[in-house]
Amino acid sequence: MNLEAQWIVGFVDGEGCFHVGISSHLEMTRKVQILPEFTVVQHKDDVQVLNALKKYFGCGVVRVNHGDRLSWRVRKMEHLSEVIIPFFEKHKLKSRKRQDFEKFRDVVRIMKDKVHLTDEGEKRVKRIASMMNRGRRR
Amino acid sequence: MNLEAQWIVGFVDGEGCFHVGISSHLEMTRKVQILPEFTVVQHKDDVQVLNALKKYFGCGVVRVNHGDRLSWRVRKMEHLSEVIIPFFEKHKLKSRKRQDFEKFRDVVRIMKDKVHLTDEGEKRVKRIASMMNRGRRR
Repeated sequence: MNLEAQWIVGFVDGEGCFHVGISSHLEMTRKVQILPEFTVVQHKDDVQVLNALKKYFGCGVVRVNHGDRLSWRVRKMEHLSEVIIPFFEKHKLKSRKRQDFEKFRDVVRIMKDKVHLTDEGEKRVKRIASMMNRGRRR
Repeated sequence: MNLEAQWIVGFVDGEGCFHVGISSHLEMTRKVQILPEFTVVQHKDDVQVLNALKKYFGCGVVRVNHGDRLSWRVRKMEHLSEVIIPFFEKHKLKSRKRQDFEKFRDVVRIMKDKVHLTDEGEKRVKRIASMMNRGRRR
């Protein structure tokens, strides 16, 4: 299956998710783990779409998500920062998901610059993350 | 918002629904109503995407679907048959939704030829409809 950039943008406008997970890890120095991830979830019948995305971008993993559903997930900072983000900077999302993408990009940049390891940076990331996804509708 | 064909294909691969509704109407001659419809549902924040689709295809209506969700819906036989179906014949869907589209197209053709008004034709439509959407996964 060969994908075109605009098809990917349309599909991600519908099915993609830019998410920043924040969880407590008391054993870690900063007690908090920030985990940006980009995922696309599909019914297992459509695993070939996920594999085609993985092949197109050359990164991420396809795995069982929940029940009959599989996900293609990119978590590696290097891949987010060098592959995924430049793609969606070049090929703009058309839905409001673009707002999530832009916040996601900001978090990845903060983390790349290690600013999230300061109190102020961590606060900034938490503030941005709270406005993403369903948060921006509240 | 200007849409490109491949963006639409990707978006519909994710968010589109080709559906054939079949309901009993005892007052009608054949007692049964067959209603093919193509819909895209979005959160109201993304109404501009639905309006852009409506504008691109020049048909269908945008209306409240349920709660915070709106849909762009095409039901007119003429629009399905002359606009929507030719578009997706030219620009092929990449996900398994293509199978739903092909069954949907078959039903619309049967109806255009009035074959659904015979017992055999009605049976055929019901059989096809039962294999669409979640049905094809059973």
